[in-house]
Amino acid sequence: MPESPTTLPELDLTASSIDLTKTICDIESVSGNEAPLADAIERALGDYQHLDVLRVGNTVVARTSGGKPQRAIIAGHIDTVPVNNNLPTRFETIDGRDYLWGRGTADMKSGVAVQLKLAAELADPTIDVTWMWYDGEEVASDKNGLGILAAARPDLFVGDFAILGEPTRSDIEGGCNGTVRIDVVTRGLRAHSARSWVGKNAIHGIAPVLNILAAYLPASVEVDGLVYREGLNAVGISGGIAGNVIPDECRVHINYRFAPNRSAAEAVEYLRELFTGFEIDVVDAADGARPGLDAPIAQEFTRAVGGEALPKYGWTDVARFSALGIPAVNYGPGDPLTAHADDERVALDEIVACENGLRTWLTGALA
Amino acid sequence: MPESPTTLPELDLTASSIDLTKTICDIESVSGNEAPLADAIERALGDYQHLDVLRVGNTVVARTSGGKPQRAIIAGHIDTVPVNNNLPTRFETIDGRDYLWGRGTADMKSGVAVQLKLAAELADPTIDVTWMWYDGEEVASDKNGLGILAAARPDLFVGDFAILGEPTRSDIEGGCNGTVRIDVVTRGLRAHSARSWVGKNAIHGIAPVLNILAAYLPASVEVDGLVYREGLNAVGISGGIAGNVIPDECRVHINYRFAPNRSAAEAVEYLRELFTGFEIDVVDAADGARPGLDAPIAQEFTRAVGGEALPKYGWTDVARFSALGIPAVNYGPGDPLTAHADDERVALDEIVACENGLRTWLTGALA
Repeated sequence: MPESPTTLPELDLTASSIDLTKTICDIESVSGNEAPLADAIERALGDYQHLDVLRVGNTVVARTSGGKPQRAIIAGHIDTVPVNNNLPTRFETIDGRDYLWGRGTADMKSGVAVQLKLAAELADPTIDVTWMWYDGEEVASDKNGLGILAAARPDLFVGDFAILGEPTRSDIEGGCNGTVRIDVVTRGLRAHSARSWVGKNAIHGIAPVLNILAAYLPASVEVDGLVYREGLNAVGISGGIAGNVIPDECRVHINYRFAPNRSAAEAVEYLRELFTGFEIDVVDAADGARPGLDAPIAQEFTRAVGGEALPKYGWTDVARFSALGIPAVNYGPGDPLTAHADDERVALDEIVACENGLRTWLTGALA
Repeated sequence: MPESPTTLPELDLTASSIDLTKTICDIESVSGNEAPLADAIERALGDYQHLDVLRVGNTVVARTSGGKPQRAIIAGHIDTVPVNNNLPTRFETIDGRDYLWGRGTADMKSGVAVQLKLAAELADPTIDVTWMWYDGEEVASDKNGLGILAAARPDLFVGDFAILGEPTRSDIEGGCNGTVRIDVVTRGLRAHSARSWVGKNAIHGIAPVLNILAAYLPASVEVDGLVYREGLNAVGISGGIAGNVIPDECRVHINYRFAPNRSAAEAVEYLRELFTGFEIDVVDAADGARPGLDAPIAQEFTRAVGGEALPKYGWTDVARFSALGIPAVNYGPGDPLTAHADDERVALDEIVACENGLRTWLTGALA
C-alpha cells in the first residue's frame, strides 16, 4: 500500500470565526515553529483577489488598495508560548458561558481568526487596511516578526491608526506600560563562614533593597484619560558561592512596569534615585505607548466598537507603532489573565463581539 | 615523534616539608578530583617498611605497629575548595616574612606535607600512630572521606588521642564550633509581572529574614575555659522564574556556627525560634566538640608543642573523633583566616614549627 501523502493544514476563511479559531489553535505554532501556520495563512489568502499578499520570513502581509483616504494597520502574532498539555483545544461551558479552551485561544489566535475572516470577507472596506500576521512575539525582542518587518519593509508601516489583536476581552485597551529591567548588586568580601567576622556578607547587604521593594506602593497614573497601574517587583535574586563561604555578591533582578507618561530613560533615572547608593545594571528598557485615542480615526473606531477604552498594563507591540508615530490600540478576544496560563481559554461571545465590532467599523455600518 | 608518556606526579617524602607542601599544592585536588594526589601519596608511602598502608576510595591510611602502650590518630584532608587563579603556588615575602602562596597552602596541604614527612621519617615513634589522609572534606558531609572510612573500617578508629592538621598557625586549637545549615523559604503566587497585583511576591516576602540576619549580633561563649565566637550568615539566596513572572518561591540558605556548649538539635531549635513564622528546611546539622584538653596524653602533647591552647571556631572533623570518644585537637600550619580566600598562603616558619612540634612529641625528645 503506498504511503498517504502528507496533508497540509487548510484554513477555510468562510468558516465562523469560532471554528476558524479552533482550526488555527490546533495547528501548533510555539515560537520558532510558526512556518506551517504561516504557510496555511498565505495559501488561504491567495484565493482573494482584493488582497495583495506578501511574505517576509514567517510574517504574512495582506493589503487592500481601494484608494481610500485613510489606512489602518491591523495586526496579530501567530506564535504562542509553549504547549503544556493544553492542545488540542476543546469547547467547555463554565457557569453557563461557552469557552474554547487550549493554548493560543486567548493569546492570540482568536484575534488572528477574526482578522483573517474579515480580511477575506471585506473586499471593499471604508478605509484601506494593511493586515499583518507575524511570528516571534513571545520570545526575545530581536525575534519579533513585526520588528523584523518594520526594519525590512518600512514602506508597509504607513497608516493613520493601528489595531493589535492582543487579548482585551474585546474591549479597547489604549497604549501600554513601559518596562525596564535592572539588577541591583551588593558587594561583600568572601571569607570562611566559620570566621564570618573577617568577611562582609553581600546577601545581608541586599536587605535594604528588598525592604524598599516590599514597602513600595505602586502608583496609578492617568495618561490621556486612562489610568495606568504600575508595578515594581523583584523577579529574581541570586547570591552565594558555597555552604561555608560568606558571599561577596548578591544580585536582585527587578522589573519595573511604568505608565507611558514617562520614557524608559526617565524610568531608569527614577530607579537610580529609588536605589541611591546601590550599584545598578540596566538589563533592558522599553518605552510604553500613550493611549493614542485622541485621533479622529481612533474615536470613530471607539464609537463603532462601543464601550469604554481601558488602559493596557502589559507591554505590547502597540509601542512599536507608537514609536513610528502611528496611534495604536489593543483590541481582541480573550482575558489577558489567562494568557500563558495552563487553563488558557477564550469566551466564544468575545470572539463574536470582536468580529462584529471590527466589521461595524470597517463597513461604516454605524455611520 | 611519539607522544610523550603521561607523567604521574611523584612525591619525595625526604624533601623538606616546605618543598613537599609546594609539590602537593601544585597537584590540583579540588573536592571530587583527589585521585591523582591520593595515588601519589599511596605510591610514596609504599617505600617505607615500617608502615602498613591501605586505601579506601581516595583515603590513604598508614599505621605503625610498634606495640606501644598508646596510639594517636593524626589526620588531614587532601582536597581543597575550587581554585581561583591561585595555582601554581609561588613563594612570596611580605613584611620580611616568607610565605608559600596559593590554593591549599593553608587549608591544609602544609599540614598534610608535615604529616607525610614525619610518617616516612619516624620508623619507631614513642607512641604508635595511625596516619589518615582523606578526601571530600570541603563538600557535603556524606562525601567526607573520614566519615566514610569510619563507617567502613571502625576498627581503624581506635586511639587515645587524635590530631587533625587543620590550619591553626601551628597553635593547638581545642574542640570546634558546631554547624547547622537551614533554608528559610517564603511562598508566593505566580503572575505576569505586568499585572503583579494578581500575584504575591515571594522575594519581597524574604525581606524580614534578611533584616534578622543583618541585625544579628553573634555571641561569644566560654566552654571549658576557651571562648568560642559564633556566626549566623546567609550563604546563598535564590528565587525567580523569568524576567516577567512574579516569583512564587524564595529560599535563603543560612549557616549557623554555634559554640560546643549546645548540641546541633538545640541550635536548630534556636533557629526555629529566631525565624518564627517562616518555613524552615534543615539541610544539615553537626555537633561541635568540646575542647578535650584534659586527657593526660593531650596535656603531654601540649607540653611538647609549647604555647597555649586556643578555641577553634570552624567546625572540623575533630568533632567526628570527639563523637567516637577520642579526645582530639586541631594543630597545623597556616592562618585559618586565609583558608578558602583567593590570597590563601602559609608562613614558612609555621610549617617548620609544626614539623618540629610533632617530631618533639613523637620522638619523646622533651622527656
